[in-house]
Amino acid sequence: MIYADNAATTGMTPHAVDAMVPFLAEQYGNPSSLYSFGQESKEALEDARARIAACLGADPREITFTSGGSEADNQAIVTGAAIGARKGKKHIISTAFEHHAVLHTLKALEKEGYEVTLLDVHKNGVVTPEQVAEAIREDTCLVTIMYANNEIGTIQPIKEIGAVCREKGVLFHTDAVQAAGHVHIDVKDQNIDMLSLSAHKFHGPRGIGVLYAKRGIMLRNLIYGGAQERGKRAGTENVAAIMGMAAALEESCSNIDVNAKHMTAMRDRLIEGLDKIPYAELNGDRERRLPGNVNFCFEGIEGESLLLLLDDKGICASSGSACTSGSLDPSHVLLAIGRPHEVAHGSLRLTIGEDITEDQIDYMIGAVDEVVTYLRNMSPFWRDLTVGKRVHMFAE
Amino acid sequence: MIYADNAATTGMTPHAVDAMVPFLAEQYGNPSSLYSFGQESKEALEDARARIAACLGADPREITFTSGGSEADNQAIVTGAAIGARKGKKHIISTAFEHHAVLHTLKALEKEGYEVTLLDVHKNGVVTPEQVAEAIREDTCLVTIMYANNEIGTIQPIKEIGAVCREKGVLFHTDAVQAAGHVHIDVKDQNIDMLSLSAHKFHGPRGIGVLYAKRGIMLRNLIYGGAQERGKRAGTENVAAIMGMAAALEESCSNIDVNAKHMTAMRDRLIEGLDKIPYAELNGDRERRLPGNVNFCFEGIEGESLLLLLDDKGICASSGSACTSGSLDPSHVLLAIGRPHEVAHGSLRLTIGEDITEDQIDYMIGAVDEVVTYLRNMSPFWRDLTVGKRVHMFAE
Repeated sequence: MIYADNAATTGMTPHAVDAMVPFLAEQYGNPSSLYSFGQESKEALEDARARIAACLGADPREITFTSGGSEADNQAIVTGAAIGARKGKKHIISTAFEHHAVLHTLKALEKEGYEVTLLDVHKNGVVTPEQVAEAIREDTCLVTIMYANNEIGTIQPIKEIGAVCREKGVLFHTDAVQAAGHVHIDVKDQNIDMLSLSAHKFHGPRGIGVLYAKRGIMLRNLIYGGAQERGKRAGTENVAAIMGMAAALEESCSNIDVNAKHMTAMRDRLIEGLDKIPYAELNGDRERRLPGNVNFCFEGIEGESLLLLLDDKGICASSGSACTSGSLDPSHVLLAIGRPHEVAHGSLRLTIGEDITEDQIDYMIGAVDEVVTYLRNMSPFWRDLTVGKRVHMFAE
Repeated sequence: MIYADNAATTGMTPHAVDAMVPFLAEQYGNPSSLYSFGQESKEALEDARARIAACLGADPREITFTSGGSEADNQAIVTGAAIGARKGKKHIISTAFEHHAVLHTLKALEKEGYEVTLLDVHKNGVVTPEQVAEAIREDTCLVTIMYANNEIGTIQPIKEIGAVCREKGVLFHTDAVQAAGHVHIDVKDQNIDMLSLSAHKFHGPRGIGVLYAKRGIMLRNLIYGGAQERGKRAGTENVAAIMGMAAALEESCSNIDVNAKHMTAMRDRLIEGLDKIPYAELNGDRERRLPGNVNFCFEGIEGESLLLLLDDKGICASSGSACTSGSLDPSHVLLAIGRPHEVAHGSLRLTIGEDITEDQIDYMIGAVDEVVTYLRNMSPFWRDLTVGKRVHMFAE
């Protein structure tokens, strides 16, 4: 099996598992308890918080543990919205191709009277700081723009967008779920006020994430209850998962350069190979993208059939976000970069892992080529194209 | 070490760990993915959902996975509130001694214009169905009453309260975080519309819980985003934790009677022993309580010192909820059952596990007796009592 869906989730590394498992059945003391068995958990928890903070250039007090990236995104956005409302500011800026954890939270806020501007992400899937500067109004309370897109992997000019927001006194949140552990992040240097991440995207466990919030930002609770996380996130601390996350993040961050070099080379080999398939186009900027992300549209192909046939060949791939699988709508990300509906249905996302080999890349190129050819030969739509009843959208 | 704080959290059983660990690094496919590696996770997930549903007498479609009990409580309450608001009903009934995951959520709703009635829980810590019937008004949309109290372990007449609610057409939610896995629950038979539970209270992992909602109840999202959990709870499914939870719940539920018999005998032995300490009183009804819960108030004792000295003797105990540790306020639960402030500070909660032995019980009785005597001898307050400057509240 070649697992090429690392943007959906990753397997935990042995290092992360080893850091997690002792806290399940042995060191299970509740960190909020007074006795030493509980206080040992508290120390482990705070040590993990400090190590995670260090990976992000943050202060430990700025780290709040959540159940994952979606919760962190939701909490960051309602926090920015609540702070804005207190000043009479109810305008939020985001982009058209955010993850649904952002877009659906914004939709809910629109029902509460907030106004949302979604910036265009252009054909290359990159927003400019100038767009942000132009969109900021007197009543803008929050800018939320993802660090790297989950489908097409394009990386945004976060530091420059952060600088614009800081200059205009507007809070800036970034959904860094796809970026954390894969590219260097420094929240201070990059002018980030709030940042979300999720452990299972960098070989940590599921069900745990981080909301970084710059000191002075009073988080609004999503989950009310106990006094954990300074009263801002109720629920018994998930120490085991936090230990696994800390180990995975440290491991990923200390290997970012080595991993990025290898993965970028493999990614580019994969892109070059798939580019030779006729009527195929890469989605998203070729350079400004995550080291592991390849996303193509193939004319005349229906994504689901493509995935099932690749599965038969032992390749785990997706057409886009796993979070929306089952939906018949084409990807909102691909529509946002201007792909027409009929082509957006024929997308393939291959997100490779750190240990991918050249042989696996070449196998994937061959397999995709074969499957695309097979499906096109069966497709009436494709026959219409070849006999000139329809016009190709992509070059041969 | 004697771990007598099972109400705060429990260690996972080997059975639960074994069910969980393979899903961390090996079977890590995303259940929302199309390829077979993901679909295998999906099958495991749905199998776990069905097994959990069976433990509760529910239908699998009525089970939504959350990050734990607090999240489930929050979501149940905002759901009941939202359904009520659509009919112009904004009155909620609860009790004065709920967990803060309920009380603080209700506080937040009060700010949004909801009216909350908190029922008296009497000296024995039990609410009656008659109280509920009397409190229900034309505009009542939700009754939320905990199954068993987390501090004093008293069990409420859930089935009878549910019958009252059903007769009056009011939604009934119960926070069963302390009850699940420890007493028999059947949501249909007990007229429960919504129920929350948390895996780490019955030897499952942390960071995972369940919100049961009767078919037809449209949950309101707390966390917006992906389409997981029928669109009602976003975030990549925490399959590993769910597998651990299912195994732990099945294990607990199949042993409820055996465990309850042993624990009740051990509990009663502990209560009898501690009752012999002068000026001590059991908190909560003697009969209608969880098999593992013992909670005493000792006159003239400051709870924190008691816990630290017991820790020195190898006993993990608490004064009440771990979720509020660090707070200087006396327990709202003990105040709700009528304990005066000065006595509520001197509480001790011992929540024993399934494998507790008679020897351990006797050791705990001796240790508490010794520590209470030691602390009283040092206390000026106690000297005032003994020389008649103050009046005892409890019998000798």
